[in-house]
Amino acid sequence: MAPPERLSGVLAPVITPFRRDLSADPERLIAHCRWLLSQDVGLAVFGTNSEANSLSIPEKIELLDRLVEAGIDPRRMMPGTGCCALTDSVTLTKHAVSRGCGGVLMLPPFYYKGVRDEGLYRNYAEIIERVGSSALRIYLYHIPPVSQVGISVELVERLTGAYPDTIAGIKDSSGDWNNTRELIERGGKDFRVFCGSETFLLRTLRAGGAGCISATANVNPAAIRRLFDDWQGPGAESQQEELDEFRGCLQMPTMIPALKAVVAGFLDDPQWEVLRPPLVPLDEERKSALVRTLRERGFSMDRYGG
Amino acid sequence: MAPPERLSGVLAPVITPFRRDLSADPERLIAHCRWLLSQDVGLAVFGTNSEANSLSIPEKIELLDRLVEAGIDPRRMMPGTGCCALTDSVTLTKHAVSRGCGGVLMLPPFYYKGVRDEGLYRNYAEIIERVGSSALRIYLYHIPPVSQVGISVELVERLTGAYPDTIAGIKDSSGDWNNTRELIERGGKDFRVFCGSETFLLRTLRAGGAGCISATANVNPAAIRRLFDDWQGPGAESQQEELDEFRGCLQMPTMIPALKAVVAGFLDDPQWEVLRPPLVPLDEERKSALVRTLRERGFSMDRYGG
Repeated sequence: MAPPERLSGVLAPVITPFRRDLSADPERLIAHCRWLLSQDVGLAVFGTNSEANSLSIPEKIELLDRLVEAGIDPRRMMPGTGCCALTDSVTLTKHAVSRGCGGVLMLPPFYYKGVRDEGLYRNYAEIIERVGSSALRIYLYHIPPVSQVGISVELVERLTGAYPDTIAGIKDSSGDWNNTRELIERGGKDFRVFCGSETFLLRTLRAGGAGCISATANVNPAAIRRLFDDWQGPGAESQQEELDEFRGCLQMPTMIPALKAVVAGFLDDPQWEVLRPPLVPLDEERKSALVRTLRERGFSMDRYGG
Repeated sequence: MAPPERLSGVLAPVITPFRRDLSADPERLIAHCRWLLSQDVGLAVFGTNSEANSLSIPEKIELLDRLVEAGIDPRRMMPGTGCCALTDSVTLTKHAVSRGCGGVLMLPPFYYKGVRDEGLYRNYAEIIERVGSSALRIYLYHIPPVSQVGISVELVERLTGAYPDTIAGIKDSSGDWNNTRELIERGGKDFRVFCGSETFLLRTLRAGGAGCISATANVNPAAIRRLFDDWQGPGAESQQEELDEFRGCLQMPTMIPALKAVVAGFLDDPQWEVLRPPLVPLDEERKSALVRTLRERGFSMDRYGG
């Protein structure tokens, strides 16, 4: 099998549905992934917004298997496989490669703080050597506001220098446009830079970036994809403004409960509100206000489930 | 089997030895635990200084089994069992209880930042309900400099109110003496408060606390234990000063490489220097300087291995 093509476009860090007993719900996840693909949005399953770090390794392996067995194209998938423990990262990454995933999105180990680039380099190098597959494509995951352990541009250069085929790109969720621009400029021709919010999508594409991987793509996929397709057209600026306005409605200390409230509200499926601790659902008042606001803007989740 | 007695005294967050291939080394861990017990220091295996978050759940289960099967008394153990994923915390905690551990030291889920006390409460409550054992004794683990997610005094009160038999105490690694004092004052009569550094040991004991769980107890166990035994005696202040001086020699951005360098140097066993990424060993110069400094102070690791 040929190694996967490098990814670009718009991907959603797919939110993970839970049953009332907090177990993961593969059927609802499959339906959500099918809908996202129908909107031409790729699947960054097991990202931050997927509550991935609230799932065990066996749970993630089981969910990935269920998705692939349901016929979801693994080449459109970029599962998160970076864990605190090297051995966990290897297990999960190996599994993703064996299922034919287009790439993996890899957090640095995030428990120990203030670690040196040398230690992070060794972590990634060791994973790459142990997985030992020419089909492995790693997208580094830089999200210092959450992980508190970041990936410097110097570390990116060292990794792409040592593993030019494997290190395929980065998701930059720093929220710092200067950092994203620097990654695009210094990452090299084939290095795929995704911004972590569609707020930066137009700027990212104009600077030569690959697209975005954004939480809101879980509920607003078509509009974000449209900007990706039309970014050189005359309406790009106003499309970007509309995306920013939509995102503004969801902006909260953490966006995950808001995303789930929107899906639950617009699909009329309250089970989608369930989150695993330490996250908790929005209270009734905020949830109703959010759904009402979006309805007033004419928002809907088109063609869901068909 | 009667539920375990609540713990007190001095415990070491036991450093985890690795082989050159980065696999965990149960034989060296058993030897180190035996030595610590011979110095009357308990075993907080799988703590921060154990590189516990660089170990997978199966690796931790295997190591715990090997320790118990080697005859190490599980009632002297307080393994760390708090993970990012609720399901992992349940798996590991259940296993610790099934092996008869005296308690568990439980981090809050630490990936998602800015979470509410309500979410942390639900995490602990769900674990307690799922483990469902009257033999479970939880010591909460408050270490905001590393986890970035803390355990407030209000959360402690809510948890001890709901689960007075199960929530047995806390390790306070905030480095904030006022917080430790408040925990002792407000935690209730049987609530066991351990400071996270022997620097606070005398103050903790004078205020009614239970002891300390400290990294340096891995190399300096007897002297720390001596202060615990003699804290009401005339030499307590000077003992505390000596402990502080010793600790000062090891103080670095992260103490784990220094602890391993000391053990490797004084046991003449270089394999002990191995760390898992993202941590890296001290360079030769710093390592030699550290060992030399301690030798000049007359330090040795007495009766190790017998």
